[in-house]
Amino acid sequence: MTGDNRAPVTVIGLGSMGKALAEAFIDAGHPTTVWNRTAHKAAPLVAKGAVHAETIEEAVAASPLIIACLTTYDDTRQALAPAAAALAGRALVTLNSGSPADARAMGAWATGHGARFLDGAIKNVPAAVGAPDTLLYYGGDRTVFDEYETTLKVLGGDTVHLGDETDLAALYEMAVGGTLLPALVGFFEGAAVLQARGLEVSTMVPFTAKWLEMINSVLPTFAQEIDSGNYADPMSSVNIFLAGTAHDEQLGEEANVDVTWRTPLNDLLKRAVEAGHGDHSISSLIEVLKKPEHVA
Amino acid sequence: MTGDNRAPVTVIGLGSMGKALAEAFIDAGHPTTVWNRTAHKAAPLVAKGAVHAETIEEAVAASPLIIACLTTYDDTRQALAPAAAALAGRALVTLNSGSPADARAMGAWATGHGARFLDGAIKNVPAAVGAPDTLLYYGGDRTVFDEYETTLKVLGGDTVHLGDETDLAALYEMAVGGTLLPALVGFFEGAAVLQARGLEVSTMVPFTAKWLEMINSVLPTFAQEIDSGNYADPMSSVNIFLAGTAHDEQLGEEANVDVTWRTPLNDLLKRAVEAGHGDHSISSLIEVLKKPEHVA
Repeated sequence: MTGDNRAPVTVIGLGSMGKALAEAFIDAGHPTTVWNRTAHKAAPLVAKGAVHAETIEEAVAASPLIIACLTTYDDTRQALAPAAAALAGRALVTLNSGSPADARAMGAWATGHGARFLDGAIKNVPAAVGAPDTLLYYGGDRTVFDEYETTLKVLGGDTVHLGDETDLAALYEMAVGGTLLPALVGFFEGAAVLQARGLEVSTMVPFTAKWLEMINSVLPTFAQEIDSGNYADPMSSVNIFLAGTAHDEQLGEEANVDVTWRTPLNDLLKRAVEAGHGDHSISSLIEVLKKPEHVA
Repeated sequence: MTGDNRAPVTVIGLGSMGKALAEAFIDAGHPTTVWNRTAHKAAPLVAKGAVHAETIEEAVAASPLIIACLTTYDDTRQALAPAAAALAGRALVTLNSGSPADARAMGAWATGHGARFLDGAIKNVPAAVGAPDTLLYYGGDRTVFDEYETTLKVLGGDTVHLGDETDLAALYEMAVGGTLLPALVGFFEGAAVLQARGLEVSTMVPFTAKWLEMINSVLPTFAQEIDSGNYADPMSSVNIFLAGTAHDEQLGEEANVDVTWRTPLNDLLKRAVEAGHGDHSISSLIEVLKKPEHVA
């Protein structure tokens, strides 16, 4: 493969994700320049054909498209600061985690220096970078997305522009990502239940996989109930879930496992019942999660 | 289809799941007898070809295989009690939720009356009954499973015998099912974040679907870490998750949403760090979920 008609790309930040991004660009034949605060991380990429920029100024000057994959937006601004003047007219794409407010601040800084700005998120692990099914979504300057869509799809075939607001990727990232820790703790608790019986946790994985697929299959219905505000025709009611919480203590006893992390979840169910949602869909829990508009 | 060479089946309990089970047997050509405490629920099944047993004694006498799908094991025993003498030599399969201890008690009662007992769980919604991919798992008398495996597969193509212990399905059900409420609350919280911005929650569903698929893809690794007790080569460390909890407050502010249900999850992360697991895999959280063996 040659990079003759592929856009030159600079990748800034060579942690496990940044390294995977740079590799994907190299493999797809893009002239790829890399930069990292600690330079040794560039070596394996140089061996594959990347150019190592000694300074951030060189890194920015090398390409019309700069992908920054540092830990935070603050790190990104600090790294780019010496080259800020060179950002004018270039496309800057950030791919790190952070809050919507942080993404807005990053966007203001970048456009303030004349950059065309896009903020994105990768909904997957580094090993999935480049796969046709891997999802990346972006918010910000639509012209950057349109101009570089083919290049961005090198990182994952399911590449989406959410809208012109610079914080949309961070917003969706926050909204979508929040299921991870609670779902994992539920899995680890289940793992403890099996371990207490001397069973291998691996035996549970195919069943959990089916269970998460089942959860996936019902989310469109819950989303529709929430969007319409109609919780009255439930697939599973709050009361059914509340009845299920009686198992929690048995679960704790069966496996000698600490189930107290579930207490606030069960309290949410009780508050929903108190608010009149007992026979409503479990999706009505959103109504007790929302705080009143104005609290003193 | 005729039922000439299909095993006669009795289905006891015609809630939404029991009705789906009976329909699957009728559709597959099994002579199907149905019974419900409130008889009117049998009518639509009789219209499809089922026989309605007026009494529980008739229901049990009608088939060598009896599938009970009542709400609890207690309900099941109460319903079957008048026909207990007729259970001898028959195969009784329970498909309801309950704790492992309750499943053991149910098994002791059933075998005490001479029944051959199998306890199972359906890892899906009623609409999925009968699909080739639908998972049902069973624990208990292996000879019942072997004799009726083809019949049981009418309810779902992915039908598994976990082992001879009567409480294994309830145990796995508890272990696997525990991810549901926490994962859903995470989703509803994310939905509130989007709603606060005037975005449709439906726009988030395809992204959440990919995210749950990503979670599925990493569970085998976590299971392996737990089974081996080796948390030292982490894909995602406890410290990385703990750093991520800083976003919680921003999330609460961004959307005016109550994020306090996350407090005990974050406390688990902190306790794991205190126990020396900071740089270990997030799967090491299981070690802080497990309570000490002997507590006064």
